[in-house]
Amino acid sequence: MDIKSLIRTIPDYPKPGIMFRDITTLLSDADGARDAVRALADPFRDQKIEKVAGVEARGFIFGLAVAIELGVGFVPIRKPGKLPFDVIGEDYALEYGTDRVEMHLDATSHGERVLLVDDLIATGGTALAAANVIDKLGGNVIACAFVVELPDLGGRKRLESTGHRVVSLCEFEGD
Amino acid sequence: MDIKSLIRTIPDYPKPGIMFRDITTLLSDADGARDAVRALADPFRDQKIEKVAGVEARGFIFGLAVAIELGVGFVPIRKPGKLPFDVIGEDYALEYGTDRVEMHLDATSHGERVLLVDDLIATGGTALAAANVIDKLGGNVIACAFVVELPDLGGRKRLESTGHRVVSLCEFEGD
Repeated sequence: MDIKSLIRTIPDYPKPGIMFRDITTLLSDADGARDAVRALADPFRDQKIEKVAGVEARGFIFGLAVAIELGVGFVPIRKPGKLPFDVIGEDYALEYGTDRVEMHLDATSHGERVLLVDDLIATGGTALAAANVIDKLGGNVIACAFVVELPDLGGRKRLESTGHRVVSLCEFEGD
Repeated sequence: MDIKSLIRTIPDYPKPGIMFRDITTLLSDADGARDAVRALADPFRDQKIEKVAGVEARGFIFGLAVAIELGVGFVPIRKPGKLPFDVIGEDYALEYGTDRVEMHLDATSHGERVLLVDDLIATGGTALAAANVIDKLGGNVIACAFVVELPDLGGRKRLESTGHRVVSLCEFEGD
């Protein structure tokens, strides 16, 4: 299954000059969606992963499916104010302004081996903030796995330079 | 596996008097999360489901996992302005004001048999709006499946009165 061929490119979204990589066409394909989940899990089947974490909102789509594929539980990483229990968070810079991700205090702890999953890595800002929150809780981020990588935006380098392993299923150059 | 026992109740969230049913404790339990996904899929294994649809954000968590369990694709139903391709939407009333859900125009069509999945049914407003958008696209909503049902809030009656089948894995009375 060629996962990349199932991803639709939408020019000039959300603004002129941006080539948006749309995973909904992959998700709606039964074989493609299943194979993407398996491919996200494959590098980690012998890595003793204990939790999968996924970032709101599109990271939620793959997160639980990958967790079940690996036989572990799933923990959500959310935008501010969305989680009902006690939380810890991390702010991160956007092009303009800042954003924040939060996790429940009991989401992970004590060196638990966590796989972070999201649909796409661009600059890596969200993923790095998510990894930092897992770190704060005492979890051990074994790797960050993405369906789509936009290598020109430098996210892999940024995550790797902070000691994180990065895996992606396909790349789109020139973004 | 007693799914209900894995759901945490948080009193007075998001405001005094509300008993919030927190599914993150279910999700983080490997056996509980897997069993919930299987239980959501079980009633529909012989129902020739062709797509699973899930509503942003917590419906995304279960949606793809249930779709893979049933061997079909997944389509996301999102808040306004989040989907990159051409969309159709439906407004619905909240306690104060209105909200809206949107789907891609190519998400479903031509009588396709769709299972709608979400984490929780309260008043049923979001689910009914989501089912209406699927209808507008020509999809056939076979059922709406939820992990948690709050029967006192009337969502099941509301959906059933509009011809929709409702399935839930557990109920919390008195909400």
